[in-house]
Amino acid sequence: MRVHNFCAGPCTLPLEVLEEVRDELVDFRGSGMSLIEMSHRSPEYEAVHEEALSLFRSVFVVPADRTILFLQGGATLQFALVPINLLGEGQRAAYVRSGTWGKGALKDAAAWGDAYAAWDGEPVGFTRMPQAHELEIRTDTRYLHVTSNETIEGIRMASFPDPGVPLVGDLSSEYVSRPIPWERFDVVYGGAQKNLGPAGLAVVVVRTDLLERVRTDLPSYLRYDAHAAKDSLMNTPPMFAIYVMGKVLRWIEGLGGVEAMAERAERRSGAVYDAIETSEGFYRSPVDAADRSHMNVVFRTPSDDLDAAFVKEAEGGGLVNLKGHRSVGGIRASIYNAMTDEGVDALVGFMGTFRDANG
Amino acid sequence: MRVHNFCAGPCTLPLEVLEEVRDELVDFRGSGMSLIEMSHRSPEYEAVHEEALSLFRSVFVVPADRTILFLQGGATLQFALVPINLLGEGQRAAYVRSGTWGKGALKDAAAWGDAYAAWDGEPVGFTRMPQAHELEIRTDTRYLHVTSNETIEGIRMASFPDPGVPLVGDLSSEYVSRPIPWERFDVVYGGAQKNLGPAGLAVVVVRTDLLERVRTDLPSYLRYDAHAAKDSLMNTPPMFAIYVMGKVLRWIEGLGGVEAMAERAERRSGAVYDAIETSEGFYRSPVDAADRSHMNVVFRTPSDDLDAAFVKEAEGGGLVNLKGHRSVGGIRASIYNAMTDEGVDALVGFMGTFRDANG
Repeated sequence: MRVHNFCAGPCTLPLEVLEEVRDELVDFRGSGMSLIEMSHRSPEYEAVHEEALSLFRSVFVVPADRTILFLQGGATLQFALVPINLLGEGQRAAYVRSGTWGKGALKDAAAWGDAYAAWDGEPVGFTRMPQAHELEIRTDTRYLHVTSNETIEGIRMASFPDPGVPLVGDLSSEYVSRPIPWERFDVVYGGAQKNLGPAGLAVVVVRTDLLERVRTDLPSYLRYDAHAAKDSLMNTPPMFAIYVMGKVLRWIEGLGGVEAMAERAERRSGAVYDAIETSEGFYRSPVDAADRSHMNVVFRTPSDDLDAAFVKEAEGGGLVNLKGHRSVGGIRASIYNAMTDEGVDALVGFMGTFRDANG
Repeated sequence: MRVHNFCAGPCTLPLEVLEEVRDELVDFRGSGMSLIEMSHRSPEYEAVHEEALSLFRSVFVVPADRTILFLQGGATLQFALVPINLLGEGQRAAYVRSGTWGKGALKDAAAWGDAYAAWDGEPVGFTRMPQAHELEIRTDTRYLHVTSNETIEGIRMASFPDPGVPLVGDLSSEYVSRPIPWERFDVVYGGAQKNLGPAGLAVVVVRTDLLERVRTDLPSYLRYDAHAAKDSLMNTPPMFAIYVMGKVLRWIEGLGGVEAMAERAERRSGAVYDAIETSEGFYRSPVDAADRSHMNVVFRTPSDDLDAAFVKEAEGGGLVNLKGHRSVGGIRASIYNAMTDEGVDALVGFMGTFRDANG
């Protein structure tokens, strides 16, 4: 029996995509071989690659003056490649230290160059994002790095800042699930393994004119320009992940694209936040209302014991991976693009039942 | 109909592995979800991860004092990470410039630090590997990098040098298909997408005691020690590729392990080289007999036109991807671990038929 999988990533994918992948697994479209046995230079794979690039651009409404790269190493390698590629002599990088991922991005950037926190959410327990006037941008700042959604703490930037320097965005947990103001971003990146596909693929979107100004005196895999020059086929790409992502993007397209995903996310996370707000204090969200994530709904019951009982009983009912991240505890329901409405309904129903029994 | 796929990588995989992957694709072992939907922290995935690590160690006979890392970015990212992690102040790196991949490794290393060619095969057209006495190792050399097999030129190191400095080996196209003298190697690495599984996974084997001496002042994804400290789960690993590799390794184990793969490779490439040698000059190998690859058999007919006809007619008979690399032309038959004996027999048979018709 298929479960409702609320995992924070990797996470649930559309069932019809999985079934298509299964049906094509041994013999890809009559080629006599599996896609995972194919040359990345074959016409069959090149068609898959180009289609995924094209769908990513159309579905996420990426402007024509941006280059889309399919890389490996996850968002974590981008924590390195962003400062490596963008920071020039005498320049520094500002980071919004908004939670676990923002902290990680800053730490990695500071291991490479001059990077600082333009705002630090730690004093407020990472329960909100900064307001525009709280950002402190120093001179010679090359970019401001933002994490649009903190998966672990369950907070999101309801709107993106416009701080007078270009933005770099880690969109991992909101990738292709909200429209973004492209004109403010020099680089946008994210792992595919939440809203878009399997682990092992990061998609990086770079302003094309920057590729002539990035560093070129480095080993090839570290250079955005080297990947761009070969259409992300400089070396063997993560073909299976790209192939599956292409199918997920087509599925998103069929549902109405990124705007539809954003409305869907607001409506469905909203249903769970409503269940929290109307629980007369049984459920609590630690997050400021304005900055609550549309992807990762973090909440608690009156006690750690009840949190654990909630997770366990939900699992018995086919609602799995509701345990909060080990670093923060509590409960977390991740509602990515491919979560079904039935899954969300079942969760809201279970929250009522559990509260009635334990409230 | 399943074809015989002689692609140089990604390449043929065991049919029984593909069928198992297909059967588990939508619902992984009764979990109610696909493996590609699972948390990399789930007990189900952790078991897959640990099994793949353990099988890689046992099947490739990796000594206990080595750490095995599952990374992304292919061998190409290792072209960067090897010098980044190993080269200290005042040290330099020697490279055997043996062919396309050896050239690439040296170029990337030289973009990071002080790296030089201890031997250059370009003057001899990359038709052989160096003899031991030809290697020129300078003072302060930290390691000698070797490419055990050049996939494009079809040459291999019949035996590994013992130059008085540690070796670093790119084993990509011979991974787990020949035993190696582990005591000479500080680092061994390779992409999985030839002998072991799908693209998107590199396996790196490092002397564990080195992990305390590598550079630690760098962004985390670039640090071997950071990956090792988290058992290659510092960030989301390429789970699907690791899962498939585990199945391929179990299949190799069932056939007798790395020694059996080496014998198999020698026997099967030998059958094709015999067909070349007994063709009375119709087929020619450009490679010195002693250094002929056991994985990538490169050869030519009397003309470019006949080369093209060979590739095309073979394809009609279900023998595909026999075209030589675009940089060198001719014909190339890659006979990796998972190529079937039937495929090799069919190729040898076709070589005879084609020669009879065109000789």
